[in-house]
Amino acid sequence: MSPELHISLSNLQSNIQFFQRMITKNTELSAVVKSDAYGLGIAKIVPEIERCGVRSFFTATISEAIKVRRYSRASEIFTLNGFDFLKSNLYREHNITPIINNILEAQKFIEIFNQTQKVAIQLNTGMNRLGLDKQSLLKNIDIIKLLPLNLILSHLACADDTSNKENTAQKDLFINLCQTLPNIRQSLSASHGALLGNDFHFDMVRPGIGLYGGIRNNELKEVIQIKVPVLQDFIIDKNMQVGYNFTYKAKHKIKAATLAMGYADGLPRTLSNIGKLFYENIPCPIIGRISMDLVTVDISNLPKTPKYLCVFSPEYQVDDFAKDCRTISHEVLVNLGERVTRVYSK
Amino acid sequence: MSPELHISLSNLQSNIQFFQRMITKNTELSAVVKSDAYGLGIAKIVPEIERCGVRSFFTATISEAIKVRRYSRASEIFTLNGFDFLKSNLYREHNITPIINNILEAQKFIEIFNQTQKVAIQLNTGMNRLGLDKQSLLKNIDIIKLLPLNLILSHLACADDTSNKENTAQKDLFINLCQTLPNIRQSLSASHGALLGNDFHFDMVRPGIGLYGGIRNNELKEVIQIKVPVLQDFIIDKNMQVGYNFTYKAKHKIKAATLAMGYADGLPRTLSNIGKLFYENIPCPIIGRISMDLVTVDISNLPKTPKYLCVFSPEYQVDDFAKDCRTISHEVLVNLGERVTRVYSK
Repeated sequence: MSPELHISLSNLQSNIQFFQRMITKNTELSAVVKSDAYGLGIAKIVPEIERCGVRSFFTATISEAIKVRRYSRASEIFTLNGFDFLKSNLYREHNITPIINNILEAQKFIEIFNQTQKVAIQLNTGMNRLGLDKQSLLKNIDIIKLLPLNLILSHLACADDTSNKENTAQKDLFINLCQTLPNIRQSLSASHGALLGNDFHFDMVRPGIGLYGGIRNNELKEVIQIKVPVLQDFIIDKNMQVGYNFTYKAKHKIKAATLAMGYADGLPRTLSNIGKLFYENIPCPIIGRISMDLVTVDISNLPKTPKYLCVFSPEYQVDDFAKDCRTISHEVLVNLGERVTRVYSK
Repeated sequence: MSPELHISLSNLQSNIQFFQRMITKNTELSAVVKSDAYGLGIAKIVPEIERCGVRSFFTATISEAIKVRRYSRASEIFTLNGFDFLKSNLYREHNITPIINNILEAQKFIEIFNQTQKVAIQLNTGMNRLGLDKQSLLKNIDIIKLLPLNLILSHLACADDTSNKENTAQKDLFINLCQTLPNIRQSLSASHGALLGNDFHFDMVRPGIGLYGGIRNNELKEVIQIKVPVLQDFIIDKNMQVGYNFTYKAKHKIKAATLAMGYADGLPRTLSNIGKLFYENIPCPIIGRISMDLVTVDISNLPKTPKYLCVFSPEYQVDDFAKDCRTISHEVLVNLGERVTRVYSK
């Protein structure tokens, strides 16, 4: 038996509509679907997003973009991690739009495609990760102007920190840099950036995690639940120990259950003796070390042994789980393993 | 561009031979290949292990076992996570041997298969995770004796802690419990247990992580290296900040590079500002937050910008990396993402 990842397509749709309501009619809503649509599965998620009217998708790599193309014939697909020019034929063959991140990529693009292929450019407005900074842009503006650009984008470093003045600083620099490349669509914001308000929307917003239920917000819905099958229940007497290296010792007699989810499935080992699974709203504490394929929990509080427990509860959502893992929702989602069966519902 | 996981099949073979030399001719060497052969890829790893003379494989689930069967026609394949009796037809169809973990599974097995299918049993000798404990075994011995058992197994909780007296306690209990089921093969030890000496070998040892280079030992070889392509280099001036939430601020001017590996690929976000990548033996510290698809490092110490950096070095191996991630090699391996291209060499 394996864990099941239940994905609510109607809540995904509701989250898309939330972003659609937020933007004006001059702004396009695109969707970020890198890393297999944040672990939820490109094959089902891309067509569902497209049904809501979205026509532009972002992936990290060309391989991901090709996978998206399989499920979306007509949309525009961008690769955020740059132009992988050694595979230039794939961009043409699958009609993928590379995002140029530096001058070498720009030169290679012109050399290979000239004006025959669409292209976008990323500007570095302060995150210092990828993209052309002001200096390289201005120094190489003649080369950049040879590119048949259809989108200029940049990325905010601190968008989840709404009052951070760096957001405005990045926006102002973005506006400033875009002036050197007039009449081209502009995009600055992903999910958190979109929530900062209309000033941050420009011609396109690019939510990812916000679509998939990873942001706690009254108007965004949870999209996923993980159901973990119980394999066995048993009594742990006082002073008995549980799991690798006996990191748990029972203070009194308890009833325990071992379930079919381990760190290979995306239940991080760091939750050993800290995390919990749920039966409805009742928490069942994880006892002992999480193994590769298994986890043991204390089910003493349950009236009887259930068939499965859940990773989330109405009061303990993806972002709460992520906090306990000392990370963010994004890492939780993309770490859900291959053995976890994806189950989609309307 | 994506990271490449380079897997040395000759070093895998060398590690198999290390375990083969360690055991006597009455002990069988099997291999644990659950979680896609610890992330290295069942399709290539299973045939390679079989070529070394191994004839028994262990997976966690029936789905994994079916995948192993595709690449190994004649071997015996066991499912550690029990007998998934709702899928009993799959065990017969693919000739998979379930490992019974509790009385319900035993009853279901007898009801469905009677004596027509091979079966193994797991005993709980103290880890308190899965398997029948002494009490259930003795209470239900008449049912258990109806099973056409070909293997009795148990699992050590503290085998990596060589001087822990629990190892001997579990072994003694295992010997004691096996007396109730005479003339059936016995197996207690995985990799670390096998290293405890001949007393722990019984009729079969079941190494997993030890085969794949996750144990630091003079006679075991590293099996994997990860090469991460550089996407872009740039200068970070004093006081400039890097990555999400600007958790890194340059104390002086440095040269940085952004590479195509993020937490979606198995470079845990917890290594932000802590981890490093390598050019040969030269460490390049990770600066700022690791993103989903990208990581930025300080390459000031390198003579020029390389095409790629490595996750491991001769002096910084999988278990060192795991320690920096506050986990164990197993979790590092199974978390390597789908985008990471597996490259096999002899």
